[in-house]
Amino acid sequence: MGNHEKISDAVVRRLPGYYRHLRELEHMGITRMSSQELGQRMGLTASQIRQDINCFGGFGQQGYGYNVPELKQRIGEILGLDKLYHMIIVGAGNIGRAVAHYPTFKREGFLVDALFDVDPALIGQQVGDAKIHALLDLPAYLQTQPVDIVVIATPDAQAQQVMDLAVAAGIRAIWNFAPVDLIAPEDVTVNNVHLSDSLIILSFRMHEREVRKDPA
Amino acid sequence: MGNHEKISDAVVRRLPGYYRHLRELEHMGITRMSSQELGQRMGLTASQIRQDINCFGGFGQQGYGYNVPELKQRIGEILGLDKLYHMIIVGAGNIGRAVAHYPTFKREGFLVDALFDVDPALIGQQVGDAKIHALLDLPAYLQTQPVDIVVIATPDAQAQQVMDLAVAAGIRAIWNFAPVDLIAPEDVTVNNVHLSDSLIILSFRMHEREVRKDPA
Repeated sequence: MGNHEKISDAVVRRLPGYYRHLRELEHMGITRMSSQELGQRMGLTASQIRQDINCFGGFGQQGYGYNVPELKQRIGEILGLDKLYHMIIVGAGNIGRAVAHYPTFKREGFLVDALFDVDPALIGQQVGDAKIHALLDLPAYLQTQPVDIVVIATPDAQAQQVMDLAVAAGIRAIWNFAPVDLIAPEDVTVNNVHLSDSLIILSFRMHEREVRKDPA
Repeated sequence: MGNHEKISDAVVRRLPGYYRHLRELEHMGITRMSSQELGQRMGLTASQIRQDINCFGGFGQQGYGYNVPELKQRIGEILGLDKLYHMIIVGAGNIGRAVAHYPTFKREGFLVDALFDVDPALIGQQVGDAKIHALLDLPAYLQTQPVDIVVIATPDAQAQQVMDLAVAAGIRAIWNFAPVDLIAPEDVTVNNVHLSDSLIILSFRMHEREVRKDPA
């Protein structure tokens, strides 16, 4: 351990893609793969692949390529995927339900144990393996049950309040889908999925192409 | 136009955040803001803010700060947000519905005109302003209606097929939520939202903190 402390943000962003592709290859029974082949699958150059993989400790021998299961396991360890995580989801609307039903989370060790909502019509309903609880029961739940990650899928206006409550209860990892930037203490990891930002970047890329095609 | 062709990927990723914060400030009636204040709101340093904003043409005068509505409008233009976009969503499950109901898209000029699904129980249902059509009607729809962006919210196995169909019909922008890397021609812009990758990066950040706290 420890040698991945130097991994740059750009490499970190690519790591889940490596893991995803290596897992697919393993499922297909492929045990060896060259940096060229892996690069083609992932849309990266062979030298980029070699550079990335060097960052987290040399694998692969010249001319033999990478050992797929070994590399997948090592990347899984670096990513912390060799553990189980207990998640709860606050907000049982479309986004909360989409997260609860997401097909690969359970396989990767992320268990959705419960959802919370304010809507009385939803409370008591089952979503996949989990039940929807009253939001009022959240503080008690956090005090008595193991929770590693709190998913925030509430409207904007409630998001910060839910985070503050979770942080006060000792939660150190927040996965936020509300389109606001939450204010968190230093020792809390917040990962945002801002759908609107993603769509706006798509719009920028389209616009950029047009501008490039037809310079004024 | 044209001077944003040099904007780096890192700056592009921050642009939607600038737009979001500037819009909020404008709503609050704030018309001027210094790089220090904007930096504090956005969790960036003042010099980072100045550098970013210099990338797309100098705004702000020394000592006076930025003109909020002007800067917001300029960033909106760079992002292509001064136009209307017609979107359709393929897959009317939780993710498709979450996108259709997303509160800010319409305000930002992204109109969800229709959804498509294979499930006969869903076809004909209304989701927000849009109706769910049979997937079989997608080719005819693409031939007769204006569509700028196709949102793919299908299971993995169907995603590539939907993209190929959309591309064959002339679509040049794909917003993909299926957890696969789609193969697209050069002139098609694909923006992926890989929820699983985002969760895995959260797991990495948690794990990294632990590793740092207790070095072996």
